[in-house]
Amino acid sequence: MKATFMYGAGDVRVETIPDPTILAPTDAIVRTVLACVCGSDLHPYHSLPHGELGRPMGHELIGIVEELGSAVTNLSKGDFVIAPFAFSDNTCVFCREGFQTSCIHGGFYGSPEVGGLQAELARIPLADGTLVAVPGIDESSELLPSLLTLSDVYLTGYHAAHMGRVASGKTVTVVGDGAVGLSAVLASRQLGAERVILMGRHKTRTDLGIEFGATDVVAERGKEGIAKVMDLTHGEGSHIVIEAVGLMPAYEQAYGIVRPGGVISRVGVPQYEEAPIGFGSLFGKNATLTGGPAPVRAYLEQAIPQVLTGAIHPGRVFDRSVVIDEVSAGYAAMDNREALKVLVTF
Amino acid sequence: MKATFMYGAGDVRVETIPDPTILAPTDAIVRTVLACVCGSDLHPYHSLPHGELGRPMGHELIGIVEELGSAVTNLSKGDFVIAPFAFSDNTCVFCREGFQTSCIHGGFYGSPEVGGLQAELARIPLADGTLVAVPGIDESSELLPSLLTLSDVYLTGYHAAHMGRVASGKTVTVVGDGAVGLSAVLASRQLGAERVILMGRHKTRTDLGIEFGATDVVAERGKEGIAKVMDLTHGEGSHIVIEAVGLMPAYEQAYGIVRPGGVISRVGVPQYEEAPIGFGSLFGKNATLTGGPAPVRAYLEQAIPQVLTGAIHPGRVFDRSVVIDEVSAGYAAMDNREALKVLVTF
Repeated sequence: MKATFMYGAGDVRVETIPDPTILAPTDAIVRTVLACVCGSDLHPYHSLPHGELGRPMGHELIGIVEELGSAVTNLSKGDFVIAPFAFSDNTCVFCREGFQTSCIHGGFYGSPEVGGLQAELARIPLADGTLVAVPGIDESSELLPSLLTLSDVYLTGYHAAHMGRVASGKTVTVVGDGAVGLSAVLASRQLGAERVILMGRHKTRTDLGIEFGATDVVAERGKEGIAKVMDLTHGEGSHIVIEAVGLMPAYEQAYGIVRPGGVISRVGVPQYEEAPIGFGSLFGKNATLTGGPAPVRAYLEQAIPQVLTGAIHPGRVFDRSVVIDEVSAGYAAMDNREALKVLVTF
Repeated sequence: MKATFMYGAGDVRVETIPDPTILAPTDAIVRTVLACVCGSDLHPYHSLPHGELGRPMGHELIGIVEELGSAVTNLSKGDFVIAPFAFSDNTCVFCREGFQTSCIHGGFYGSPEVGGLQAELARIPLADGTLVAVPGIDESSELLPSLLTLSDVYLTGYHAAHMGRVASGKTVTVVGDGAVGLSAVLASRQLGAERVILMGRHKTRTDLGIEFGATDVVAERGKEGIAKVMDLTHGEGSHIVIEAVGLMPAYEQAYGIVRPGGVISRVGVPQYEEAPIGFGSLFGKNATLTGGPAPVRAYLEQAIPQVLTGAIHPGRVFDRSVVIDEVSAGYAAMDNREALKVLVTF
């Protein structure tokens, strides 16, 4: 099969490797219908040291179950499934508490053992706990891109809003107009936010943000951006700030505009470890900091019907499509900001 | 009147200064019945640079209203009142949201303008919003020490538990066996915590913690302390960790033992600004960080009856008493850990 590997910053290759096989009785083999490139794939695209061994890439897919291990009971061959970006048994104590990304027996794609999902076939560990079948869907459905967003990007935005306790009447500011930020706009409106301020300066993206429900767009950054949001909120600040970038300036922006008693919810994978949290940033105004890797699995059952009924169209974040052989061009297009988010077809 | 000033680290003096007077029509003058020394007073006691002008000290008192500005309508002369450690109008948008420590018109004691509360008399700004009268109490009541804790220490512990969303069935770990930590133990049990692990190594203090409801005591610190709490929680970690110290090792302890999806609630005034919050500390396990200066005013109406009915006895944190002239000895006793918390009498 064809699969995607990264050998170092900027060096993405599609290679033909042996098809994956069932290794554990809880595994499934899935044939990929659609995969995609994630904003978080761009972090190694910028910084991965060159190596002899390629890193298997991709952690988002929808596809068809081809083969099942003997212990898998919830799925059948031919099922159309969504694979969350982390696999989990969905039965351990942390899964039951809704944090499947901390599953005791689970893990992430992209290791030599588990492989990546930008590939024609994928071995999915803990298939019963991980995969969710979508009935009545076939490969010609126009809902496929939106279903694919439930593998990561839309439900990562949803997780940000959920952890930030977005609710009716709240003002939410989303820092970042990438696909996760735009998803957070859409999710915040779904959760009842009255006002959603989107901070971003790429007009085609913020225009989609407005279609997703943003009520205000702030293109300024830094001190000017903080001043603008404070103006828009009558000097009070935002109840919830969703930080969907992962870089320090976005975090600084967030604590500058969060309201006393408000919440900063992070889903941009932080590219820093240390940051201000003392009296001058979070503590003095009783700001709460939350967020982390989205336990997508926890939200799938409720999100799938929203897509199937057309209540939400999160697949609109995809603005380019490449076939698997051209996935390297997809990375480049996202890196150059020519594309917001890139579909991978097979 | 006599009032307390700090002229530098270790240099606490009681001086006779002019009695305070009504400066604004919203002021009240209160005659202090009991004041006390706060753990946070020890931070400048360790580090305040020496100066010519003393810093007015103290921010906790109960007392009797002596005089009222013309605009004060909720209080009468002779009322027995509790003064929260921050003053607030209790009507601004942040007060109405329950964050009176961020009151737009409020502030803190200890400036030349407002003075400190380790003093025979105090000018309380925004008296209508700030002071709460306790009916049926006189200066001979044995409930006075517990009522005094509602000025800061008990309700700071309560705030930690409240912000940490302590609830029935939860495991709470309290880092720090100072008066705030012990108050957080008591408050966590009030809020229904099933298990309260107290991390501290001063036996007289942890013994009081057990009387306040701690179910386990961990004397170890650092890696050993983390390992012990993980053992006690079957390797899962604590749903809520209350950090009641304010120093980096306590924060490191906190993120080491918080459970995936759990909450770290800080009320030890952080003596640091930067700290780890990235993938390896908070983000990776979806840990939430919350807390700040306690909006004591928000909790007073519900806490006063708990003291008056004897449901809680938070005043047990006081284990020494000094008269105002000897307040310097009170600071020294707390600094030497000879005393847990020191009452100041008049």
